[in-house]
Amino acid sequence: MAVEATAPGKAILFGEHSVVYRGPAVVLAIDRRARVVAEKRGDDRIFFDALDLGFSGYFEGETYVPVQGEIQQGRRLQALLVSTRCTMEHLDLKSGLNLTVRSRIPIAAGLGSSAAICVATVAAVGELLGGGLSMEEVCDLAFEGEKVVHGTPSGVDNNISTYGGILRYERGKGIDRFELDSNLPFVIGNSRRRRSTRRLVSRVRALRERTPEIVEQVIEAMVQVSKSGLAALKDVNLHRLGDLMNVNHGLLVSLGVSIAKLDLMVHASRVAGAYGAKLTGAGGGGCMIALSDISNLENVSRAIRRCRGDPYIVNISYEGVKTRRVN
Amino acid sequence: MAVEATAPGKAILFGEHSVVYRGPAVVLAIDRRARVVAEKRGDDRIFFDALDLGFSGYFEGETYVPVQGEIQQGRRLQALLVSTRCTMEHLDLKSGLNLTVRSRIPIAAGLGSSAAICVATVAAVGELLGGGLSMEEVCDLAFEGEKVVHGTPSGVDNNISTYGGILRYERGKGIDRFELDSNLPFVIGNSRRRRSTRRLVSRVRALRERTPEIVEQVIEAMVQVSKSGLAALKDVNLHRLGDLMNVNHGLLVSLGVSIAKLDLMVHASRVAGAYGAKLTGAGGGGCMIALSDISNLENVSRAIRRCRGDPYIVNISYEGVKTRRVN
Repeated sequence: MAVEATAPGKAILFGEHSVVYRGPAVVLAIDRRARVVAEKRGDDRIFFDALDLGFSGYFEGETYVPVQGEIQQGRRLQALLVSTRCTMEHLDLKSGLNLTVRSRIPIAAGLGSSAAICVATVAAVGELLGGGLSMEEVCDLAFEGEKVVHGTPSGVDNNISTYGGILRYERGKGIDRFELDSNLPFVIGNSRRRRSTRRLVSRVRALRERTPEIVEQVIEAMVQVSKSGLAALKDVNLHRLGDLMNVNHGLLVSLGVSIAKLDLMVHASRVAGAYGAKLTGAGGGGCMIALSDISNLENVSRAIRRCRGDPYIVNISYEGVKTRRVN
Repeated sequence: MAVEATAPGKAILFGEHSVVYRGPAVVLAIDRRARVVAEKRGDDRIFFDALDLGFSGYFEGETYVPVQGEIQQGRRLQALLVSTRCTMEHLDLKSGLNLTVRSRIPIAAGLGSSAAICVATVAAVGELLGGGLSMEEVCDLAFEGEKVVHGTPSGVDNNISTYGGILRYERGKGIDRFELDSNLPFVIGNSRRRRSTRRLVSRVRALRERTPEIVEQVIEAMVQVSKSGLAALKDVNLHRLGDLMNVNHGLLVSLGVSIAKLDLMVHASRVAGAYGAKLTGAGGGGCMIALSDISNLENVSRAIRRCRGDPYIVNISYEGVKTRRVN
């Protein structure tokens, strides 16, 4: 017997970087998912087959034995191990395990791949061991894994991968989740350049220390964009959402977190008829996101491909983490 | 006997677009100049040889007779005629004239080509007719020509072409001129896309009407950048100037006035070691400007050329309009 769990990735619509200081971020769960299959082993080993992340190997106690890919314990592997162990400790159950990780969420691209994998891992292990974890428990246990990857994560990524839907997050004010009545598709363009959120956040912090009077003004504008953007999203006002995404992109450019390829894909999407487009996530690589009429999604995708980006047409996913028994 | 007059072009360092609403703009005269040679004719015709602008032809009374290029009276031709006639009316002198216009300032690129040509025209005609115009008179008469091209120009362009140097301009507060002790070279990158300032200003106004709460914040940030930028310029603080140029570029992107090619040249200049880079002028085409160490000017120029832009290495010009008699 084995258990499969899947969890959605995410895209930030408004508020990246500014949310570190103040104001809301608006985050969408997307219908690209990470999938983890867990089954028990006869021995005590915890085996990870995670070739999408670049490795397979197992833990024999504290010793990692690589089978393929990275020999050192990278952060991604550590996050898997921590998610698994925390779940077993929480349930006070123990078993050798085979964990197969597959993901349609590109890694290090700002789409919440690591959180989705942690959430799916916790859910699969929990269900396999018969623990009947609540959503809240899954979310909290996955957060332990997220900490390994991101240091001090906001809690948004594990939250959205657990519950799906749309989140409004603001520091000190917690998380609100909501849904829209209408279908609202986006095109995501992956620059294929991996980047580190930590490094980009530090870079913005350094710029803020050098020119506080300016960066405070930029952040203030971003906070306003996030607030107006949230209202426009709830109203499904596409023209207004597009305007606000465009402005938000420029503000992110002013913080120095865009790269030429992201700017190119953003321009190309607009020329191809998108209502608006912006980088999504920390920048420095990763992805952009464009809002487009359904009839125009393919045009925008082609425009992104012409810039040598990988386009993904995505919908907001209201389906959070899901588990099922498989043979 | 003929008179030659030359006048410098300009580049906006800080404050394009925001200056339409409030706060200062910081404008540099650059050492690329327009040149007009004026000589008397035996008849009443006013002949313009302005092939750099795309035309040659003459006025016989109110009738324009094209020799080459545009058949209709375009705005540029009108501006030349108005500058010439206003000067003659002001001096209460009249003559047939040959006017030869040559310019190293690309047109419709945001570098003040039309103002430099108007200023040089007024100065050449004034000197030829022996009027002994003051600088102030040259500036004011050229403004009449500028109005033909730009509708309601700020008065900055004719001012900087007349006096040279660095100007701080703010609506309702007039113009301050100053100089730096140090040499401060820039690289300008021309996208080769002509654009209309009027159209871009209208586009920003429309965005402001749609999203006033956001655009006001962006303008506020731009005003702050211009103020800090002016101080950094006076201190010749290159790192800080670079930071502020970079932030300013993003803010202009957020107003929707950049194009992919400008963004590419901006990124390429930074990668090539510029302290900072931004679009200059109204955007929608035209030019970007990069600040670089003298030792690095060629690198930045090459980077711009690789983006298929035309690089010009320029210095701030403290030499305003100049006339001399030629044979």
